[in-house]
Amino acid sequence: MSGGDRNERSAPRLGFDPNDAAFAALPTPSLVLDADALERNIARMDAFLEQRGAWARPHTKTHKSPEIARLQLARSRTVGVCCARIAEAEALADAGIEPVLVTSPLSTPEKILRHVDLVARAHRVQTVVDSALGIDRLAEAAAAAEVRCEVVLDLDPGFHRTGVPMDERAVGLAGRILERPALSLRGVQMYAGTLMHLESARDRAERSRELWTRAQGIAEQIRGLGAECPVLTGGGTGTFDLDAEIAIATDLQVGSYVFMDAQYRVIESPSSPGASAPFDFFEPALFVVAAAVSQPVPELVTVDAGFKALSLDHPPEVVVPGASGPLRFHFAGDEHGMIDLKAAPGAIALGDRVALLVGHCDPTVNLHRSYVVVRGGEIVDEWEIVARGVA
Amino acid sequence: MSGGDRNERSAPRLGFDPNDAAFAALPTPSLVLDADALERNIARMDAFLEQRGAWARPHTKTHKSPEIARLQLARSRTVGVCCARIAEAEALADAGIEPVLVTSPLSTPEKILRHVDLVARAHRVQTVVDSALGIDRLAEAAAAAEVRCEVVLDLDPGFHRTGVPMDERAVGLAGRILERPALSLRGVQMYAGTLMHLESARDRAERSRELWTRAQGIAEQIRGLGAECPVLTGGGTGTFDLDAEIAIATDLQVGSYVFMDAQYRVIESPSSPGASAPFDFFEPALFVVAAAVSQPVPELVTVDAGFKALSLDHPPEVVVPGASGPLRFHFAGDEHGMIDLKAAPGAIALGDRVALLVGHCDPTVNLHRSYVVVRGGEIVDEWEIVARGVA
Repeated sequence: MSGGDRNERSAPRLGFDPNDAAFAALPTPSLVLDADALERNIARMDAFLEQRGAWARPHTKTHKSPEIARLQLARSRTVGVCCARIAEAEALADAGIEPVLVTSPLSTPEKILRHVDLVARAHRVQTVVDSALGIDRLAEAAAAAEVRCEVVLDLDPGFHRTGVPMDERAVGLAGRILERPALSLRGVQMYAGTLMHLESARDRAERSRELWTRAQGIAEQIRGLGAECPVLTGGGTGTFDLDAEIAIATDLQVGSYVFMDAQYRVIESPSSPGASAPFDFFEPALFVVAAAVSQPVPELVTVDAGFKALSLDHPPEVVVPGASGPLRFHFAGDEHGMIDLKAAPGAIALGDRVALLVGHCDPTVNLHRSYVVVRGGEIVDEWEIVARGVA
Repeated sequence: MSGGDRNERSAPRLGFDPNDAAFAALPTPSLVLDADALERNIARMDAFLEQRGAWARPHTKTHKSPEIARLQLARSRTVGVCCARIAEAEALADAGIEPVLVTSPLSTPEKILRHVDLVARAHRVQTVVDSALGIDRLAEAAAAAEVRCEVVLDLDPGFHRTGVPMDERAVGLAGRILERPALSLRGVQMYAGTLMHLESARDRAERSRELWTRAQGIAEQIRGLGAECPVLTGGGTGTFDLDAEIAIATDLQVGSYVFMDAQYRVIESPSSPGASAPFDFFEPALFVVAAAVSQPVPELVTVDAGFKALSLDHPPEVVVPGASGPLRFHFAGDEHGMIDLKAAPGAIALGDRVALLVGHCDPTVNLHRSYVVVRGGEIVDEWEIVARGVA
C-alpha cells in the first residue's frame, strides 16, 4: 500500500456484537452475513448503474446463494446472473433463478451433456465457449437433443487462463459457431481478473480501457460476419465504475460488491482514481465469527478459524470495536489462526468471540455450509450455500 | 530441496486411468481415493508400529471419514482416534467410531456443552484442555450434567498456537484439573506441527526428541502430584518413525500417512535420516481428477480445479503417465489451475482428464463432498466427507 489515506481507513462498522447473548449458541467458526449491509450494497450498485445507463449480470460464484441472486435480480439494472460451474447453474435453475450465463468454458462431454440437459428442460442458461473442440462438442450434443444453445465467445485478456486470443483466431471461432445451426452466438465475454486488485486505480482504468477497446474491435469484426452479437459482458467489482462508462460493455459481471472483503479494502477507490482514497463505495457485510480458544502467551491469542474456515489467499481483517490499534491475523494451520495483540494488549480475552472481515469472499464462502443472516444485531435466518464443493 | 535423490523420485503409480471409459461420467473436479493404496498405507503403518512396539491414535481431521476411521481402528496397534472439532466427534460418534480424543482445546460454552452432551450420552470422547478458563468451564458443565470428563493436558511445543507452556504453568494446570472431581486427567499431548515438514530428517529427529524429552519431564512432575497420567500422545506422519522409538510417547496422532500428499513427498525420508532419500514409506492414494478445459496458448493448459477444489497452501503434483518431464501446476484463481507444458509438449490435450496428486491433504479433503473410491481402475463406491465446513 502506498496511499496514506488508505492506511487510515476506519474499521468496518459491525452490525452485530458477536459477544451478545443473541450469539451465545452460535457455533464457531460461522459465516455471518449482515443482511442490512448486503442490501445497501445491492441498492448502491443499482443506483450507480442507473445513473450511468449501465447494466449488471451479477456473478453468483461469489455467494452461491439463490436468496442473494433473487435480491440482485429484483433490481432494475440486472439483466441476469452468471455462474462459474454447471453445478451452480443446476442449483440456480432448481431455485427458479434465470437467465444464467456459465462463464467458464465447457469442453468435456460430461459438462456439455449437463448443460444441454438444462437447455432441453427449458431453462434459460447460456455458456461461454473458447475452442473449436468445445464448439463442436456442444453443437453435436445440442443437435442430438434437438435444442439450440446460446453461446458467448470468451476472449483471453492476456492472462492465458481461458478465452481465445483477441485476434483473427477469435473471429475464426465466431465463424465456426455461425456455421452450427444448433448454436446461437449472443456475443463476447472479456474478463480481466488480473486487473481487479491492482492497487492503483489509474492502472486499473488504463489497462481495462485498453482491453475493452480490443474486445470491441473483435465484436465489430464478428458483426462483419453477419452476426448480431448484441452482448459484450465482463468486468468485475474492481473496475465497475470505469466499465460502466465504457458504452460498449453491455453488462458487468460484478460479484464481490455484495460482500466486500479485506482484499478489496486495500486497493485504491475506483471512483476517484489517483486520489488515494480507500475502496469504500461498498460496505463490509461478510464476517467469520470465531472464538479465542487458546492463549499460550499473552501477546497472542489463537482463534478457531484456519485454512478450513477462511481462504488462505488473503488473511481476514480483525474487527474489534473499540480496539485502538489494528490487530493482525495470521494463519496457524488447518483449524487455527493467531491474532497479534501487541498493538492492543487485552483487546481480546480467552473465550471471547471475534469478528473477522473475510479476506477473499468467494473461496471463503465455498468453505461454509450456510450463511448465518443477521439484522439489527439479531440472527434472523440461515441461507444455504448451494453447490459448494460440487463439480 | 537439497537432496538429489528426492528430485529424481518417480511419479506416483496411478491405480486408475482418469481417461478410461469407467470415468467418463465422473464430474470434474472430483476427489478420487485409491482404496488399494489406502489399505496398503494403513497396513504398513500398523506393521511398522508392531515391529517397534508402538501405538497409533490416528487423526481423523485428515479424512473426516467414518469408513477410513473404521479401517484404522480394525488394526491391532490402534488405541482410538483423534479429531479436531466437536462436529467431527459428533459425526464419528453417530457412526459408532470410539474412543475419540478432541485435540483442540475447548474454551467456549457452546463447544463445552456439546462435548459434555456427548459424554452424557455415553460416548467415549476425551478432550484436551490448556487453560484455567477451559478447565473451570468444563468442570462446571460436567458437574451440572453429572458426568465425569476425561481430559488430556495440551502442551505448547513453542509455536504458541495452543497448549500450556512446558514449565511450572503446565504442572499448575494439572493440579487444577486434579482438584475437580468432574474431571479425570488422562495424560498430556505434545504436537509439534511445525516440525512435520522440515526438509531435513536429521533436524526433525533432533528437535522432536528434544520436545518429547521436555514433555516427558512434565508428565513426570504431574505424576509427582499423585496423578496416574498414563497417556503421552502426539506426533504426526512427518516424525512417525522417530516418535515410535521414543518409549514415553504412548501413541502417535498420525494423519496424513493414509493418503500421503505432494507436501510430504518433498521432505527427506524419516526412515533414513541423512540419506537424502525421498519420503516414500507410504503411497500416494488421493488425487483430484480435473479436466483440461481451455488452452489459450499451446505451452499451457487450464484445468477446472482452483482454490475451490485444492488447498492453496501447497500445489498438487501433476500425474501424467508417460510424460517425460515434470509438469508444474500453478493456481489460476477460484475455479482454475494452469499446467505448464513446456517440459512435455502435448502431454495433455484440451478435453483430457488429468490426475493431480493432492498438495496438502487435510484442507483439500475439506473442500469436497465425498471420496470417489476406486479399486483396480474401477469406481466402486462413494464415501461421504462428514462434518466438512461445520463448526
